[in-house]
Amino acid sequence: MKIAISGKGGVGKTTITSILAKQLAEKHSTVFAMDADPDACLASALGIPEEKALNIKPVVEMRDLIRNRTGAGSFYVLNPKLDDAVEDYCYKHGNIWFLRMGDVKKGGSECYCRENTFLNALVSSLLLERDEAVLMDMGAGIEHLTRGTARGVDLILVVIEPNKNSINTAHRVQQLAEDLSIKNVKVIANKINGDKQKQFIEDNFNDNDILGIIKYNENIWESSLESSLPNELGEDTIEQINNICSKIEAEINNNEKKY
Amino acid sequence: MKIAISGKGGVGKTTITSILAKQLAEKHSTVFAMDADPDACLASALGIPEEKALNIKPVVEMRDLIRNRTGAGSFYVLNPKLDDAVEDYCYKHGNIWFLRMGDVKKGGSECYCRENTFLNALVSSLLLERDEAVLMDMGAGIEHLTRGTARGVDLILVVIEPNKNSINTAHRVQQLAEDLSIKNVKVIANKINGDKQKQFIEDNFNDNDILGIIKYNENIWESSLESSLPNELGEDTIEQINNICSKIEAEINNNEKKY
Repeated sequence: MKIAISGKGGVGKTTITSILAKQLAEKHSTVFAMDADPDACLASALGIPEEKALNIKPVVEMRDLIRNRTGAGSFYVLNPKLDDAVEDYCYKHGNIWFLRMGDVKKGGSECYCRENTFLNALVSSLLLERDEAVLMDMGAGIEHLTRGTARGVDLILVVIEPNKNSINTAHRVQQLAEDLSIKNVKVIANKINGDKQKQFIEDNFNDNDILGIIKYNENIWESSLESSLPNELGEDTIEQINNICSKIEAEINNNEKKY
Repeated sequence: MKIAISGKGGVGKTTITSILAKQLAEKHSTVFAMDADPDACLASALGIPEEKALNIKPVVEMRDLIRNRTGAGSFYVLNPKLDDAVEDYCYKHGNIWFLRMGDVKKGGSECYCRENTFLNALVSSLLLERDEAVLMDMGAGIEHLTRGTARGVDLILVVIEPNKNSINTAHRVQQLAEDLSIKNVKVIANKINGDKQKQFIEDNFNDNDILGIIKYNENIWESSLESSLPNELGEDTIEQINNICSKIEAEINNNEKKY
């Protein structure tokens, strides 16, 4: 199960990725949680101290390792659990293995094309066991899709919040995912406050596209002052997320049957 | 006066750019408002109908025009008001001339490096009159700084909201701007609700770095359901923005005296 989490900036991609990772990790032997945003904050949302996250090698450096083994350009498959070298690139946090795409570069030095290209090759080559999952927290906006970074995932989750701009972005993501032949694109509506906002979301998407709705949760917003770690979610939010996790698994299973 | 508006996704870059553009346009003969985000929404925040914005040529196409006139690689200066050809790339909305960096591309087709590189060359070459201003609404995050798109601006405004992640991004922007030799980086704190949040911002920056504080405004959030156009700002918000505009002009004037 390989999943990319996409959407406009500020909708809650990283928070939702971190919560999904934790929930999926309860049933899965390993959840690979990849921070694919140069402006990274997934590690702290997972409760991993920043200095520990920065100490692991970014996956873009794995390129040389793989090139040395396979020769440039040749096909490779990578089973991370069978490959000790992969451990240098992971921070293990229970069943969650955290990875990060690249380092913060100097101003004016470089784009992140190299990182994105390699990340796509890496994710495509990952050979997962049935009870393993990959979650990729993508950068804000659409460039990870025009670049093709997310090509090869089984599912794109587009996080939206109740405003017009985040919905416009979601519609762009749906279109770009089609270009990448990704059939399975679902929407998670976040920060929904009341029936009017719920209706607004339902008016803008097919019922079938909406995987779940997460209600506005003051606790998440309050805790974001002191820390990047969403805590004290409360029973309601946990139930909403668990529903989404069940639907994700159903989506993936359906998909396996179809293709 | 060339200004880039930067910051984490969702903090309100585009809304603030659009309001600043309108306020600056009251005193300036021309404000060039550039949408430098591939996931664009500045046009609609300015009240420009989307189909009209999409009908103007993106500035990346100006590359060929300039190349034909100057020969590849040669130095050029561009005074947009004296150059009729520039009009094809602008949508004039009162004193605001809207421009956009590039088109939405197909999924998996390309990055936005070409657009960013040209945009930097273009902004550097713009020869402005004293009463003209350029505002660039940058993409979320930090890649426009590692790419060097914003190199050559007089001022970077980093928009933050009261949470840890947007402040971390702002600190990264300050560092990256230093790499680009941009001396003038100021923070605008947005969506500030109460003294605790104001204190939180003040604890995280030098007084000198904070250009202004915009209080949380329910109207902006409410209107974002139906439209991308922030309306009915109310007197308080307009006063806060006007204060910021005055400080921007003071910053730029100080800067001119210094260098």
